[in-house]
Amino acid sequence: MFRFLTAGESHGPCLTMIVEGLPAGLTVEKEVVDADLRRRQGGYGRGGRMKIEKDAVRFLSGVRHGKTLGSPITLQVENLDWVNWEERMNAEPVEAEMEPVTRVRPGHADFTGSIKYGHDDVRNVIERSSSRETASRVAVGGLCRQFLAQFGIEVHSHVLSVAGVGYETPRAMTREAYPDEMWSAVEESPMRTADATLTEKMIARILEAKRDGDTCGGVFEVVAFGVPIGLGTFSQWDRRLSTRVGMAMMSIPSVKAMEIGAGFETTRTTGSHVHDVLRHGENGNWSHLTNNAGGIEGGISNGEPIVVRVGVKPIPTLAHPLPSVDLATGENIDQSRYERSDVCVVPAAGVVGEAMMAIVLTEAVLEKFGGDSIEETLRNYRGYLQ
Amino acid sequence: MFRFLTAGESHGPCLTMIVEGLPAGLTVEKEVVDADLRRRQGGYGRGGRMKIEKDAVRFLSGVRHGKTLGSPITLQVENLDWVNWEERMNAEPVEAEMEPVTRVRPGHADFTGSIKYGHDDVRNVIERSSSRETASRVAVGGLCRQFLAQFGIEVHSHVLSVAGVGYETPRAMTREAYPDEMWSAVEESPMRTADATLTEKMIARILEAKRDGDTCGGVFEVVAFGVPIGLGTFSQWDRRLSTRVGMAMMSIPSVKAMEIGAGFETTRTTGSHVHDVLRHGENGNWSHLTNNAGGIEGGISNGEPIVVRVGVKPIPTLAHPLPSVDLATGENIDQSRYERSDVCVVPAAGVVGEAMMAIVLTEAVLEKFGGDSIEETLRNYRGYLQ
Amino acid sequence: MFRFLTAGESHGPCLTMIVEGLPAGLTVEKEVVDADLRRRQGGYGRGGRMKIEKDAVRFLSGVRHGKTLGSPITLQVENLDWVNWEERMNAEPVEAEMEPVTRVRPGHADFTGSIKYGHDDVRNVIERSSSRETASRVAVGGLCRQFLAQFGIEVHSHVLSVAGVGYETPRAMTREAYPDEMWSAVEESPMRTADATLTEKMIARILEAKRDGDTCGGVFEVVAFGVPIGLGTFSQWDRRLSTRVGMAMMSIPSVKAMEIGAGFETTRTTGSHVHDVLRHGENGNWSHLTNNAGGIEGGISNGEPIVVRVGVKPIPTLAHPLPSVDLATGENIDQSRYERSDVCVVPAAGVVGEAMMAIVLTEAVLEKFGGDSIEETLRNYRGYLQ
Amino acid sequence: MFRFLTAGESHGPCLTMIVEGLPAGLTVEKEVVDADLRRRQGGYGRGGRMKIEKDAVRFLSGVRHGKTLGSPITLQVENLDWVNWEERMNAEPVEAEMEPVTRVRPGHADFTGSIKYGHDDVRNVIERSSSRETASRVAVGGLCRQFLAQFGIEVHSHVLSVAGVGYETPRAMTREAYPDEMWSAVEESPMRTADATLTEKMIARILEAKRDGDTCGGVFEVVAFGVPIGLGTFSQWDRRLSTRVGMAMMSIPSVKAMEIGAGFETTRTTGSHVHDVLRHGENGNWSHLTNNAGGIEGGISNGEPIVVRVGVKPIPTLAHPLPSVDLATGENIDQSRYERSDVCVVPAAGVVGEAMMAIVLTEAVLEKFGGDSIEETLRNYRGYLQ
Repeated sequence: MFRFLTAGESHGPCLTMIVEGLPAGLTVEKEVVDADLRRRQGGYGRGGRMKIEKDAVRFLSGVRHGKTLGSPITLQVENLDWVNWEERMNAEPVEAEMEPVTRVRPGHADFTGSIKYGHDDVRNVIERSSSRETASRVAVGGLCRQFLAQFGIEVHSHVLSVAGVGYETPRAMTREAYPDEMWSAVEESPMRTADATLTEKMIARILEAKRDGDTCGGVFEVVAFGVPIGLGTFSQWDRRLSTRVGMAMMSIPSVKAMEIGAGFETTRTTGSHVHDVLRHGENGNWSHLTNNAGGIEGGISNGEPIVVRVGVKPIPTLAHPLPSVDLATGENIDQSRYERSDVCVVPAAGVVGEAMMAIVLTEAVLEKFGGDSIEETLRNYRGYLQ
Repeated sequence: MFRFLTAGESHGPCLTMIVEGLPAGLTVEKEVVDADLRRRQGGYGRGGRMKIEKDAVRFLSGVRHGKTLGSPITLQVENLDWVNWEERMNAEPVEAEMEPVTRVRPGHADFTGSIKYGHDDVRNVIERSSSRETASRVAVGGLCRQFLAQFGIEVHSHVLSVAGVGYETPRAMTREAYPDEMWSAVEESPMRTADATLTEKMIARILEAKRDGDTCGGVFEVVAFGVPIGLGTFSQWDRRLSTRVGMAMMSIPSVKAMEIGAGFETTRTTGSHVHDVLRHGENGNWSHLTNNAGGIEGGISNGEPIVVRVGVKPIPTLAHPLPSVDLATGENIDQSRYERSDVCVVPAAGVVGEAMMAIVLTEAVLEKFGGDSIEETLRNYRGYLQ
Repeated sequence: MFRFLTAGESHGPCLTMIVEGLPAGLTVEKEVVDADLRRRQGGYGRGGRMKIEKDAVRFLSGVRHGKTLGSPITLQVENLDWVNWEERMNAEPVEAEMEPVTRVRPGHADFTGSIKYGHDDVRNVIERSSSRETASRVAVGGLCRQFLAQFGIEVHSHVLSVAGVGYETPRAMTREAYPDEMWSAVEESPMRTADATLTEKMIARILEAKRDGDTCGGVFEVVAFGVPIGLGTFSQWDRRLSTRVGMAMMSIPSVKAMEIGAGFETTRTTGSHVHDVLRHGENGNWSHLTNNAGGIEGGISNGEPIVVRVGVKPIPTLAHPLPSVDLATGENIDQSRYERSDVCVVPAAGVVGEAMMAIVLTEAVLEKFGGDSIEETLRNYRGYLQ
Repeated sequence: MFRFLTAGESHGPCLTMIVEGLPAGLTVEKEVVDADLRRRQGGYGRGGRMKIEKDAVRFLSGVRHGKTLGSPITLQVENLDWVNWEERMNAEPVEAEMEPVTRVRPGHADFTGSIKYGHDDVRNVIERSSSRETASRVAVGGLCRQFLAQFGIEVHSHVLSVAGVGYETPRAMTREAYPDEMWSAVEESPMRTADATLTEKMIARILEAKRDGDTCGGVFEVVAFGVPIGLGTFSQWDRRLSTRVGMAMMSIPSVKAMEIGAGFETTRTTGSHVHDVLRHGENGNWSHLTNNAGGIEGGISNGEPIVVRVGVKPIPTLAHPLPSVDLATGENIDQSRYERSDVCVVPAAGVVGEAMMAIVLTEAVLEKFGGDSIEETLRNYRGYLQ
């Protein structure tokens, strides 16, 4: 039974996560999680906050001498910015009067959260709705990645476009279409895209938006290799692998769209051009000639790469703010407020997408093969493969 | 605590659903559910099965004298085709030898399900993976629709395109963009699209595909009106309204893509063109000048229509079958098999999309306002609105 | 992911259950479930209803030719009494005026359910709160029993006492303390107790209560053999096997008390007299010299029989009714109402206890070993045993 | 949606809890939680560990300026003993060789946990199976207590017996049977029992056990006042209030038995002596003449005090250890091992019982009345009462 909860305000003392259900005896390294946290913090177009935070995780339970115990794992990531916020964000009552935040930013949770929870101070909303929360997921994903590695499963992401600059049409999605060197190039690029020329174009586009006091969204792709045939099921709607992937991707802040495999493109042609022909190799292996299904048929993984493309809207905090409303007075105002923010987070969102994919696949692998120790889990897995 | 399970094979005796958590005292009419079931069965491009089935629901528990009791509601829909399948699908062992289905159809669960469950006869897979299962969801959705009506919430769907014929670019999504007469036109059209010319073009496209032994997918849009501000939350990733909508839509068989609001289009421009400006009216009402967010900001409903566009891949069962594999022999074969099927199910899929939206909104309304009777639930709701 | 829902009113058309998560390929026989249903209907002290009903299950989904498909299983048990209640319990509105039930029975859900759900007619409460609902659980348990048999796990129950007549002090609880012939004797006894003299005494006690217009409760014991070491966990409070067993037993209507192993008796002595000494046999087997722990240590099964004793209060419907209140008038009244009922249901409650134990163990076995087919699940299990 | 996870090893750096679903705007005080943590640490018969730890909680998220935000609340309790265990329990690999623990203690999770998780070092089991984990629950319960206070709900506990010394027969359980001064006396007693003479007798019994190198269990009672009519439901087995209370109590380490209301005593008499007569007062209030049902009828609260008695087995760690097995060699040994431990924890277990009751009632109140702010929740509650 894999489950986890995340907690933590953007300017509170820390982010805390409890992860339950990973088997005992799994070797886990803090460094792998930290590397993922750093990847989330990078990318061209980030604001000042990223200069303050140097995210690193601490395991506070569930791990002993580098191996999981089978008990719940606590991960904690300190907010270095906390020292500047101790009074404003203290858990205890404080003497000082705080001026509440009351002007809402279009596109953010400022308005909806204030109405829902009955908060007078928008600060009480934005501390949790902030996408700082995604660092929690990346940490959990970094743990899951180490579990998945035992089964030969890897998860990658790259950026396809920013504000319309980049790839628009889907490309081949078989294993061969993603050579290993491509991912090295992605990791080197400040835009997390393998094509150096495109990286430059994207940066230019972001600079332009920045000059305009504006922001950019974009599209990233997440790809998982080594996923065995048989994860997920059509048996009940909420257990389809596509349901879980849909849930995971649409849960990422600012995400407004997604496609599995050829996605919307499959709606523009006919069935004979879409469905992937299956072949049985002489070595007994199964493979498909194409991968328009993005690795999922009938709600179940088919052995091909799981491929998902995800659309991220532009950041709602604009340096040239849009008109809005002041909740304290109920008055329409010409300008919402600005608060330190990024111009583009698509590369970071891609890293969050990877984490969510790693989480979904971990849950699915555990549902099918999960024992109480990693040894037992691997034994179950190998028994199935035979 | 709203939850439900669906069960039933495509050619078994019936589909059965148990729905728990609707409040007591709610008036429910079988006719409303039946009307939704009929809407799912319609649409141009359906195959022979739809001529056999005249879906109608029976309430077997949880409803007395037209009102809910607060206990679990059992819904049952008979499969009229069952009489032709009693031996092949009997729960009891039968004497006759059955020839197993062994040739898998590309794009279907035939292959993945057989490997996952270790079935030798693909029939054991396809009976549940069949999209006949979506009738269950439509029935549950028809129940939810009657609950939502108490709060002034309505859910509609229409088809935007079929095999590339239709609308490609998103349009205005405010309440005014969807006049009531539009929905009447949709309900009259065999393609569930408001534009009569487009209906004809779509039908022509489907006929062409049929002549080629091929199939069509397409795009539908689901729209919900009257949703109050404050459903869903950013507090935990799995409770965002966007997460729940993502889960619901991506769970529909054949769905490969989705967008909330302006979706992928938001990734092609900048923030100042995307975010919806909030206005506070003299009457105290809140409204947004545009609805690119599709009614969800920060994972919470913002009072505007919830708008989702969903991409459905072409049906995988082709009259001119693609090459494939015979699982019994492991041999690659030139032609998979054909089994009675539809050519296009996009209108029906839209009705399923409506049902899933009704289910998601029912769950969200109950999470925020749910009491044990409809009276208590409405009282809680009205207290919040004030 | 094992889960199930039950539905159905006492005098509605049927009871319906959906069970999800049993692996594919498991042989299941309707006869085994029916035998359990009959065992629940038996026992000395039952009222007129049991003469009307001849409970039998029908599999409406998830089973084909005697084997599970891996899809959700629908079980349905008809209420033969329904023909007498069609008007009073119809799902559709009826013309006839129904006189509402308004006098509440002490000890029943009549009062609490009416207040909770805002029902004016107590009938709307008692149709679901009736312990007829436990037939649903017995049916689900009868399915689970067939799953557990594959692992050599058996579940039994017997009655220890009725209205104080019977065993008061716990006895030995090792495997040897329960010889097979004991269970044959239990199944033959109308009181489900192995001692023929005790059977007679219990019947005499029930007859006496019946003459007084009164009712009897009692104590039953559930015992499970063949449970492997390692089900449940201390890792999180809600996953302990003791938590699950506690949940299951306390969920049975009329149950007010329970003990695992020596239970309350362990609180009257000291640790050195309570804890079970572990031995490692020459054959490599583990065993304990005693079984005061009732098979659960640290929230995990230890390989000994799981033993639970459960206390059932007397039935609340008395032929000589107690004083109460009329909800329609709010007046205190001298006599509540009588409605056809049993005098003693302890033997039947024991059969329900068996079913709940079978359900808990099925869930626990699936959590540890569960694959998608019974073959895969057994392979995982055997791999663990080595 | 109320949910929580606890994490932390006994000698790890800290215990961590994430609690989700409490409404926004609730005033919470660290001092209330700390007081509960101290109550858990007290009681005569505790060992050396309790002298080291001075448990105190820190809110790391979800609370700002003394009020909840509606976001997940992180609670953390430091283990002061950690400084002595940093090497043995480090999350990172360490150079030093650690001698594994291999002799298992009868009655503990040592054996079952080692087999289940495949651990060679019993330390990997006992760090989480240790009842130090219950401090986590007490902290969560201390938070819930503050929520419940808003509805006038209070939870208390006291000890009824230790090793057979104390009350054996149930007593009156109506509100009047528990005068306020009784609870003051309980809080003053090192045995958490209101009768000073009994306190002395219990202490004498514990001293005797200690001299013998032995341990004591006992019975505690948890009582909740002010619970409104209508929490829980008979609608589905897992939602009965009795199910939830059963789950909560049986989840406490060392608990082997429980009773709601008159419990097993109801099985020794007949219905007319058991069921509680309901009266409707002139003031419109409902009350029962007795409370043998312990406040729960038909799985739903009936407005009377919820009363539960819980049996705790003697601590399994004995100063004069029992025979056992060494897992490393598989040899039967004459003496298991001793590790610093308590002689009697019944008073502490009672405080844990209070916490679990507070958690169950918080969940039930939120299910029925829960809004997103405390104001909304109270408004819903008051609307229901009218």
